[in-house]
This record gives sequence, C-alpha cells and structure tokens, in this order.
Amino acid sequence: MKIGIVGLGLIGGSLAIDLRSQGHQIFGISRKEITCKIALERKIVDLASTNSNILNETEIVFVCTPIKAIAPTIEQIIPHLHSQTIITDVGSVKQPVVETCSQLWANFVGGHPMAGTAESGIEAAQSNLFVDASYVFTPDKNTSPEAVERLKAIALSLNAVPYICDAKIHDRAVSWISHLPVMVSTSLITSCLSDEPEILQLAKQLASSGFRDTSRVGGGNPELGIMMAKYNRAELLRSLVKYRQSLDKVITLIEAENWDNLEQILQTNQQARPKFLN
Amino acid sequence: MKIGIVGLGLIGGSLAIDLRSQGHQIFGISRKEITCKIALERKIVDLASTNSNILNETEIVFVCTPIKAIAPTIEQIIPHLHSQTIITDVGSVKQPVVETCSQLWANFVGGHPMAGTAESGIEAAQSNLFVDASYVFTPDKNTSPEAVERLKAIALSLNAVPYICDAKIHDRAVSWISHLPVMVSTSLITSCLSDEPEILQLAKQLASSGFRDTSRVGGGNPELGIMMAKYNRAELLRSLVKYRQSLDKVITLIEAENWDNLEQILQTNQQARPKFLN
Repeated sequence: MKIGIVGLGLIGGSLAIDLRSQGHQIFGISRKEITCKIALERKIVDLASTNSNILNETEIVFVCTPIKAIAPTIEQIIPHLHSQTIITDVGSVKQPVVETCSQLWANFVGGHPMAGTAESGIEAAQSNLFVDASYVFTPDKNTSPEAVERLKAIALSLNAVPYICDAKIHDRAVSWISHLPVMVSTSLITSCLSDEPEILQLAKQLASSGFRDTSRVGGGNPELGIMMAKYNRAELLRSLVKYRQSLDKVITLIEAENWDNLEQILQTNQQARPKFLN
Repeated sequence: MKIGIVGLGLIGGSLAIDLRSQGHQIFGISRKEITCKIALERKIVDLASTNSNILNETEIVFVCTPIKAIAPTIEQIIPHLHSQTIITDVGSVKQPVVETCSQLWANFVGGHPMAGTAESGIEAAQSNLFVDASYVFTPDKNTSPEAVERLKAIALSLNAVPYICDAKIHDRAVSWISHLPVMVSTSLITSCLSDEPEILQLAKQLASSGFRDTSRVGGGNPELGIMMAKYNRAELLRSLVKYRQSLDKVITLIEAENWDNLEQILQTNQQARPKFLN
C-alpha cells in the first residue's frame, strides 16, 4: 500500500520504519529539507519531500505533527489527495481535533497511538515503538466503518492494541491517566521548592525512589504539559476539581486524626491500582 | 564489638547480616520464638532470644521495631543494659521518638536509615541493603558527640551516607520527599475511581508509565501511610497545605488560559527536579 507520513518526528518516523518493513511504500513529508535528507539516508521512507504533491497516490495519510498544526496541515495536503484517501492523526487529545478535521475531510479518523520515549525528532525514530502500546481510534457518527477497520488492521500489524471509542470518552480517560498526573506531579515539585533553603537542601539529599517516581511526569517537557492543558482544558479542569476534593478529604481526615477512614482510602487504592497496570 | 538488635524484621535483620559479616557479635531480640529460630538458622545473629537479658554486655543497641513500639521497647530493655550503652532506633519520623526516648535513656541517638524493599520480615533481610542509602542521625543538645561519631562510623561501614541534623528538620524534609508524595499520589487514585464505569474502564486500559509512576507510592502499604500521617502529622499537614496552594495556582492558570505562567512553572520544575535525584 502507498502510505503518506506527514511530520517525520519520533512518532511519524517510527510509524514509517515499521510500515516500510512490512513492505508498504512510504511517502514522507517534512517542513525541513534536512529531515527529508535524514529520512532518506536512514531508509525510513521511500520518498521524502517538503512538497505534499508526492502524496497524490497514497491510500492512507498519517498526520504526525504537533496538535496545533494538524488542521492547517490537512488543509495544505488535501488538494493533492484522492477523495478516497483516509487521513488520520496521532494527537494526544481527540475531541477538538476530530471536530475540526472531520469538517475538512470526510474520510478523517482521529487516532492516538500511546507510545513515546523521552527523545523526539527523526533521530529518535525507532522500530517496534508501538508494540503492546494502546492505539485509540475515535470515529464519529459520519466516519466510514471501512476506514476504521483498515486503520485497526494497521495498528494490529504494528503489534499495538487498538481501541475504538468516542473522542470525548478518550479525552476524559487520558485526562485521568496522563494529563492530571502531570499537574499533580508538578505541583509536588513547586510546593517542595517553596520551603526554606536548609530544609530544601536536606530534602534534595534525602529524596529517593518515592519522590523520583511521583515527580517524574511533573518534571517533564513543559511544551507537552501546556499542550495537554490547552487542548484538553475542560476535561483536565474537571479532573483537577475532583482531584482537589480527594486531596481535601485526606487533609480533613489527617486534621481530625481519623486514621480508620484514612486507612480505608489507602486500602481501597492499594487494591485498585493493579487494575490500571497491564 | 557486641551489638544488640531488637526487632528482627527487614531493617533489623539486614543490619545484623552486614554487621556480623564485619566481625561484630550480634545479639538479636524478637518477640517471637520462630523469628529467633530463623535468625539463628540463617546465621543472621550469634545469639537470639525473646528475653532482653542477653543484651547485658552490648555496647550499642539498634531498636528496629515499628515506631509505636520504640519507647516501650526501650523501657523494657534498659534494666539489662550498661549505663554507657548507646541506644539508637530506625524509625522514619524522629521528633516524637527523640523527645520521648532521650528522656528514657541519656545515651539515646535517633536514627533513620533510608533503605527498604517492598518486602518485610526476617525472610526479607538481606546483605548490603544500606549501600548508598542516606542514614540520618538526629542528636539533640544533650546527646554525647562520641555516641554520634560511633554511629556515624557504623553507617559508613555499611556504605551508607550519614547525615547529622535536627529531628525537626529531618521530619520536615522527609514530609516533602516521602510522606507528602504518598498523600498526593493516593488522592490521584481516589479521584480516578470517582468517574463513571465507562471512563474508568478505558482509563484502566490506557494507563501506562505516567500513571504507574505517579500512583506508585499512593497504592502502597496502607499501614506505612497511616504511620507517616500519625507520627509526622504536623509537618505533613504543613506540606499538604503548601501543596494545595501550588495545585490551586495551576488550576487558576488553566482556568484563565494563562499558558505563559503555567509554562514558567513547568520549566522551573523541569530544571529543579534533577537536583533531587542523586
């Protein structure tokens, strides 16, 4: 199959590597000449260009740009596409993307492959990035079921685990497990930094795995955090408000020295957590 | 040297193993006959008993019981000790322990070896548990400097990193890096569990490393969480209140769509976090 990949970063590049290794013909588009050059040199793609006209025979196009560039990118490439070409994206928020892009292109299917590394860019592209990763597709009532089936088959060929759900449900779920943790975790670092130098110095020396793990996503890439907050704002605020209620409950119980009820919460959570880990 | 270890669990047992391997003579005390039997069979100690009278020639005694048992244990063993014997404990909160125990025994020095595993009990005791771990001692104005020096030398012989500080400073620092993270993390699980079954189900399926790390300490042993909250209550409440302020700030910025200031927070925290990781 002829497949287009627009945006040759970590996700686009890694998709290209795996799909090309399956025998598909890969047409890569990047804004930068140098990225096209690297993609060709590393044999990540069959053809690379800064000009979208090379997409004219593709059956499926993956738009792998940052979220804010998805809709403008689609507007730019559609003059070159067959009307039957399926466009999908890889953005980590779906509702605003699907709303806009399905207006631009009838055969658009929102997608979110939940894989990544700490690295980014074409240099970080690697084979087998999607093995065992969740890959969510968010069709709406107008989406062609055949397009969804074809994308699902591609996800399976990457050894990813496909899920089909409503865009809103997706955004709400990822708010809990991905976007809320960033804000919870970064607030932990902020509050520690607020203490006096003597305490802060000792805290830094004594910190070990508990602090390391709880602060990890909050000390990550600021751009990603902003992107989550901006594009999934309503769902993130909803989960932040519920989170604050849960936190307030814990504070109230500790103030009241109500150890039985606090223990009940800790026990419930100890039992529930393994169900989030597959 | 003749060293007593009272409480042969993970910490006491592991201390015994390392100190005995250095050639010290180890006298182990447990409330349970079976634990004494295992400690002798595994050659963790030279002598083991449920009766504290075997401590009568020891120069240093490590009290390795849960926090609530430290003071009663000391009251029970002191009739058998030389007046010059140094007593130290291994509790993870120091202010209330030091306050009580230094009244009971002049030569008491609070201690906190910051090592552990998910396991507990004599079965989990292992060699080299303290390598590279922080080991805090919290003398007060009446503590003998010689006693502190002897304990520091023992910590160094375990390849741990000794710190000497005030008990209150210790409790405040560990509240930030150990006790607050538990409450922050468990509240994350509580709030997720509050959503509708459909969302919760998808959240469980999609959760990956971000949720796993941020929820880890909050889904841990409930008894430990309660112990922290009970014995370090004032410091934990102080850091929880500061934490809630940091969280409220994040919520306010997202509500106001003030992305510049939110990015500033995320950038500060990205830069600060590595200083907590050694």
